[in-house]
Amino acid sequence: MDIEQIKEKLKKIVSPKRFKHTIGVFETAEKLAKTYGADVQRAQMAALLHDCAKGVKGEKVFEYVFEHDVFLDDIEKKETALSHGAIGAHMARAEFGINDDEIISAIRYHTTGKPDMTKLEKIIYIADFIEPERSYPGVDELRKLAFEDIDAALLLAFDNTIRYVLSIRKILHTRTIEARNFILEQMEHMGC
Amino acid sequence: MDIEQIKEKLKKIVSPKRFKHTIGVFETAEKLAKTYGADVQRAQMAALLHDCAKGVKGEKVFEYVFEHDVFLDDIEKKETALSHGAIGAHMARAEFGINDDEIISAIRYHTTGKPDMTKLEKIIYIADFIEPERSYPGVDELRKLAFEDIDAALLLAFDNTIRYVLSIRKILHTRTIEARNFILEQMEHMGC
Repeated sequence: MDIEQIKEKLKKIVSPKRFKHTIGVFETAEKLAKTYGADVQRAQMAALLHDCAKGVKGEKVFEYVFEHDVFLDDIEKKETALSHGAIGAHMARAEFGINDDEIISAIRYHTTGKPDMTKLEKIIYIADFIEPERSYPGVDELRKLAFEDIDAALLLAFDNTIRYVLSIRKILHTRTIEARNFILEQMEHMGC
Repeated sequence: MDIEQIKEKLKKIVSPKRFKHTIGVFETAEKLAKTYGADVQRAQMAALLHDCAKGVKGEKVFEYVFEHDVFLDDIEKKETALSHGAIGAHMARAEFGINDDEIISAIRYHTTGKPDMTKLEKIIYIADFIEPERSYPGVDELRKLAFEDIDAALLLAFDNTIRYVLSIRKILHTRTIEARNFILEQMEHMGC
């Protein structure tokens, strides 16, 4: 499938609001890919499909993972809002014919982050936070930082996410903490 | 060793400031043990010894763990300020003759917490945060809550710790996150 075909198919399975958000991530990921010398087409593909499984909610999560043998970790099983990374990665392969492991991994980990992220994984994670539709305290600072220093932006995004999850009394994914610790240590070793 | 002997020995190996803090934790743990029906003597012993290894710093951490074959996890090796729980647990056995696993575990985990904490582990963790020498924004709220609902106090203490560690850009121990997630889930199952 090419980009236009993916867009058409996507429009049918996500809400108009989700589609608008997706186009925002698509355009932002494209700009970030150009800024950081990443593969633009891969960034566009991953951005388009990052939320393709967002419509799989509640009981449907367990139906999908059972039927398609998708692995969810213990936290994703408890906090099913975090499962659309894993389900989306499966859907991107099975329904959209994506066979590129880099794209698949960027979709898989865009909800939690992970230690030692690739450039593409960082771009999708950050684009999801700063696309034009997003509005929350500090978004403008993050938008600016994302184009100046993607690692610093990533650390700020992780920290903001952690604080937000605490404030709404939800389960924190330990992978987000590992991702945050990894980037912090890496920045310190580089003297940032 | 009895409590007075432990106090005498402790005075020789920790700073006067640390000793004052320890006595604060000792008295607070005693009150909490009485409030929650825990073994008072065990709470006193664990409180007295919780920071017994606080003087083992920097290079001495690695000398101690090598010489005494103490296990530190990857994060404790990187963030050696977190190692005094593991080293203290060893020291309490080897130097103070403590053979009670409940006391040892309360010392071991007082720096990070852990999932599914015992009553004694909770008491030592919280007493360390609220003893009279402590002064930080929100300490009075935590002091009050500790005697009303120790689980709610624990969750608040974990959340405060996580926010503080983010603010000083240090590594977050994933065990603290697991401890926090555990208590949050437990409280939600109990309808708190």
